[in-house]
Amino acid sequence: MANFLRTTLSFLILLSVLSFFQPTLSSPRPSRLHRSPKHAHRFLGKFSRSNYTGPLGAPSYRYETRYFDQNLDHFSFSDLPKFRQRYLINTQHWAGPDQLGPIFFYCGNEGDIEWFAANTGFVWELAPRFRAMIIFPEHRYYGESMPYGSWEEAYKNATTLAHLTAEQALADFAVLITELKRNLSAQACPVVLFGGSYGGMLAAWMRLKYPHIAIGALASSAPVLQFEDLVPPETFYDIVSNDFRRESVSCFNTIKDSWDVIESEGQKINGLSYLSETFRFCKKLKSADDLSNWLSSAYSYLAMGDYPYPADFLMPMPGNPIKEVCRKIDNCPNGTSILQRIFEGVSVYYNYTGTVDCFDLDDDPHGMNGWNWQACTEMVMPMSSSKKSSMFPAYDYNYTSDEEWCLENYHVKPRPTWITTEFGGHGFKNALKTFGSNIIFSNGLLDPWSGGSVLEDISETIVALVTEKGAHHLDLRPATAEDPDWLIEQRAAEVKLIQGWLDEYFDRKRAVFDM
Amino acid sequence: MANFLRTTLSFLILLSVLSFFQPTLSSPRPSRLHRSPKHAHRFLGKFSRSNYTGPLGAPSYRYETRYFDQNLDHFSFSDLPKFRQRYLINTQHWAGPDQLGPIFFYCGNEGDIEWFAANTGFVWELAPRFRAMIIFPEHRYYGESMPYGSWEEAYKNATTLAHLTAEQALADFAVLITELKRNLSAQACPVVLFGGSYGGMLAAWMRLKYPHIAIGALASSAPVLQFEDLVPPETFYDIVSNDFRRESVSCFNTIKDSWDVIESEGQKINGLSYLSETFRFCKKLKSADDLSNWLSSAYSYLAMGDYPYPADFLMPMPGNPIKEVCRKIDNCPNGTSILQRIFEGVSVYYNYTGTVDCFDLDDDPHGMNGWNWQACTEMVMPMSSSKKSSMFPAYDYNYTSDEEWCLENYHVKPRPTWITTEFGGHGFKNALKTFGSNIIFSNGLLDPWSGGSVLEDISETIVALVTEKGAHHLDLRPATAEDPDWLIEQRAAEVKLIQGWLDEYFDRKRAVFDM
Repeated sequence: MANFLRTTLSFLILLSVLSFFQPTLSSPRPSRLHRSPKHAHRFLGKFSRSNYTGPLGAPSYRYETRYFDQNLDHFSFSDLPKFRQRYLINTQHWAGPDQLGPIFFYCGNEGDIEWFAANTGFVWELAPRFRAMIIFPEHRYYGESMPYGSWEEAYKNATTLAHLTAEQALADFAVLITELKRNLSAQACPVVLFGGSYGGMLAAWMRLKYPHIAIGALASSAPVLQFEDLVPPETFYDIVSNDFRRESVSCFNTIKDSWDVIESEGQKINGLSYLSETFRFCKKLKSADDLSNWLSSAYSYLAMGDYPYPADFLMPMPGNPIKEVCRKIDNCPNGTSILQRIFEGVSVYYNYTGTVDCFDLDDDPHGMNGWNWQACTEMVMPMSSSKKSSMFPAYDYNYTSDEEWCLENYHVKPRPTWITTEFGGHGFKNALKTFGSNIIFSNGLLDPWSGGSVLEDISETIVALVTEKGAHHLDLRPATAEDPDWLIEQRAAEVKLIQGWLDEYFDRKRAVFDM
Repeated sequence: MANFLRTTLSFLILLSVLSFFQPTLSSPRPSRLHRSPKHAHRFLGKFSRSNYTGPLGAPSYRYETRYFDQNLDHFSFSDLPKFRQRYLINTQHWAGPDQLGPIFFYCGNEGDIEWFAANTGFVWELAPRFRAMIIFPEHRYYGESMPYGSWEEAYKNATTLAHLTAEQALADFAVLITELKRNLSAQACPVVLFGGSYGGMLAAWMRLKYPHIAIGALASSAPVLQFEDLVPPETFYDIVSNDFRRESVSCFNTIKDSWDVIESEGQKINGLSYLSETFRFCKKLKSADDLSNWLSSAYSYLAMGDYPYPADFLMPMPGNPIKEVCRKIDNCPNGTSILQRIFEGVSVYYNYTGTVDCFDLDDDPHGMNGWNWQACTEMVMPMSSSKKSSMFPAYDYNYTSDEEWCLENYHVKPRPTWITTEFGGHGFKNALKTFGSNIIFSNGLLDPWSGGSVLEDISETIVALVTEKGAHHLDLRPATAEDPDWLIEQRAAEVKLIQGWLDEYFDRKRAVFDM
C-alpha cells in the first residue's frame, strides 16, 4: 500500500492536499483536525518527488521526450545556471507550418509531466481532429525538470527553491513556445493552451499575460479566485461536505460526529493502539490527529475525484465514489461502531482494490515538497471550515500562523497579496470583461475547487462551462463509453469554442493575406 | 559647461544615446563613427547617477515625497534586502474614494523622478480637471530608489544590478498602486497610466500585463517595436537624417561629408589638437571618434527635441532647433571650412546659452550606467545607419559584437529575444487587435523614436495619435502660449479618450450599483 500511495496519489492532489491542510499550519488555537500542523506536511512530503512509473490502466500516448535549456530567472540577470526543462512532443497529426497547423500546449503543473500527459486524454483525442501538434512541457522543479541538476540540489534550501514560482513557469512556457515555433518556422501557427487545476490557473494566466503567444485557453477546474477574500474561505470544505450530504444526510452526520469520537478515543489509555488497529495502520499512530488528517484528505480527494465512472486518476476508485463511501458508512449492520463505519467508508478510497493489508503514514517530518513551497510563497489560499455547514471540525483561517509555519519550516515569508496583484483580484472579472478574450473556465460543481473558479460568463469570449455533476477537471480525461450526456455536451461545447478561436484566427490571417 | 552637461543632459536621453551608440559596441569592422565603442559608453557614464538639482526654468509642481518598501525580486523568493522606492504624490485636487476619484500614475523611467515630474506638465494640468490624484513613482535603480542602500552598492557589479529590469519595475508599480489604494480605501478608483519614451513603453506594457490595475495608458513616444527585426534597424538614424534634410539638403550634405573630414584630420600630425581647438574642447581629444560620437549624439538629441518653441528639456534649445542648426551650417560666410560650419551648427545644441567656454568629455571608461545595463540585458534595440539614406556613417548592426561588449564590460549576456517574448513581437499588433484596449500611442514624426512605435490604430480602443511636426513626447510637456494648433488638438484628443475610459468605467460601476 505504501508504494501504491507513493505512485498513485497524484501530484494534482498536492494542490488539494496542501490547501486542504493549510489551516493546520500551527494555528494558535488549533482545532482537533488541525492540532498537528507538521503532520499534515509530513504526510504530503513523500509526494514531492516525481516517481512516475507509467500509467496505471490509463491509455498510453505516443510522444517524443525532449529537453530545452531554460534560464532559471527570466526576470533578473543573476548569474545562475540554466536548467533542462523536459517536454513531450507529438507531431504525428500536425498540419505543419504552411497550413498553420495549431499547437496544443498543456501547461504542466506540479508533478511529473508524463503523468499529466497520461491523464489528459482530451488533448490527445482532439489533436488529430484539428491536425494539431501536441506539447506537454514540464513545470520547473517537478519531474525531471530540476534546476541545479537534481532534486536533492534543487530542493536543498530556500535559496535553491527561490525560483519555483508561477511567473517563472509561465515565462518558461513563453520562451519554449517561441523558440520551438522559430525552429519549426511555425511562428504563424496558433497556440491553444490547456490545463487542469493549478495547470488550468497557469493556462488562464498565460492567456492573460501572453496574449501574443496563445490565442485561447481551456482552464479546467482552475481556482484562480481562491486567494485573499475573493471567495469565502469556507467554500472548499463546504463543497466537500455538500457532496457527502447530497448522497446521504446520515453519512454526513456520521462523519461530522466521528471527530469527537476519534479525539476522545485518542486520549484513552491504549486509545491510539485501538485506533491503529481499527484503521489497520501498519505502525501505531502517534496521535489521533494523524488519523483525522488521513481521513480528511481522503474526503477531499473523494470529492475531487467524484467521477461518474470508475477511474484511477487520484486513486483507483469506483464510479460515484462518495455514493459508495456513504453506502458503506450507512449500511453497516445495526450496532456497528462509528469508527468501524468510518473505516468501512474510507476503505473505498484507500483500498478499493482490496489488496492493502495495512496502511502507512509517512514519517519524514521535513520532506521538502514543491507544492508546499509554492503555498508558502505565492499560493496562499485561505481556507476555513465552517462549524455550521461543514462536516469537518470548525477552523478559522489564520494567516499569521501560516506565515510562522512557513518561516520555521521553509525559511521563507509568504506574500499573501502577490497573486492577486500580479494576476488580478477583486477587479479580475471586471478587467477581463473589457480586456481579455478566449478563455474557457470549465468546472464541475462537485469539485471542491469549483468554488474558487469562475462560474459565470464574463464576456462573450470568456465563458464558464459548468456541469452540475462534474468533478475535478473531468473534461480533460479521455472519453469513455460510460461518459454521461452532460459530459459529452461539455466537451462538445469546448471543441466548438476552440474551433471558433481557430476559425477567427485563420480568417484574420486570410484577410491580411488577401490585402 | 561640464556641470551644465551633467545636470541638464537628461535621463530620457539615455534611451536615445545608448541605443544610438549601441552599434558602436566593438563591431568587428568598425565604421568611423563606431570605431571607439568604449568611448560611447564613457560619454554616457556620467549620466547614470541622478543629480537632479531642480527644474531649470520648468514650472515647479507641488507634491509630497514618500517612500515605499519594495521587494527587490517580485518573481522569486531569494533572500534579498528590500529597497525604498521613492514616489511623489499630490492629492490636492483628488475627488477621493467615495467619488471614485481617478489616480493618474506616471510610470517613472530611467532617471530621477523629480526631473520627470518637472517635465510632465500635461499630467499636472490635467489632474484638477479630472479631480485626480497624481503619483510619480521612481524607477528602481534610478534617482533615490537604490537597492542595497546607495548608488555605489547598487551599481557595484552584475550581481547587484541583476534586478534592474522592466518586469521588476512594472511589478513595483503594481504593488505600489495596490497598496496605496488599499491604504486609502480607494480600491475602486480608476488608475490611468502615463509615460514618455521608456516610461511610455512601461505604461503600454503595464496596461497589457496589469489590465486589472489600470484602465488605460497614454504611451507617448514609446518605441515598443524597436526590437529584433520588428522595424528596419535603419529607422532611427533615417528619421534623424530626414529631420535635417527637410530643413536643408545642403545642411544634410555638409554633415554627411563631415565624417571623412574629421577622420582624415584626426590622422594628421597635430590633427587632434587642431580638432580640439576648432571644437573648443577643454582637454585634447584622444581620438577623432570621440568627436564624431559627440556630434552624432547632438544630432540625435536635436531630432528628439525638435520642438516648435524654445525648451530646456534635453538642453536649452531654441524653437525648431534643427532649422537653427542648419541655418548656422548653411549661412557661414563663403570659404568657411566644413569643420567650422559643423562647430557653428552643433553649438546651437551644446552652447545655446552662449555661456560655455570649453567643452568637456567624460573620461571615466567604466562608469556604470543604468540604461547601459538595461541595454546590455533586455533592451537590445538593433540600430544600423544606412549608407544611402542616412547622414551618419554607414553601419550594419551586429548582435555578436554587442554581446561581446556587454560580457566584457558588464559581465552579463544580453537576451535579445526576451522583450518580444515577454511583451509581444511580430504578433503584437494582431494580439492587441483582439485582446487589449485603452492605449494611446502618441508620436511626433520628427522624433527618431517614432519609427519604433505604433503609428496606426490597432483597434477602436488602441489608437495612434500622430503629429507630423511633433518630437519626443512633446504632448507630455506643459501647455505654453506658443503651442501650435496641431499640438493643442493632439492633447485635446488625448483628453477626450481618457475621459471616455473614465466615463465607461463609471458607467460600469453605476450599472453594478444599480443592479
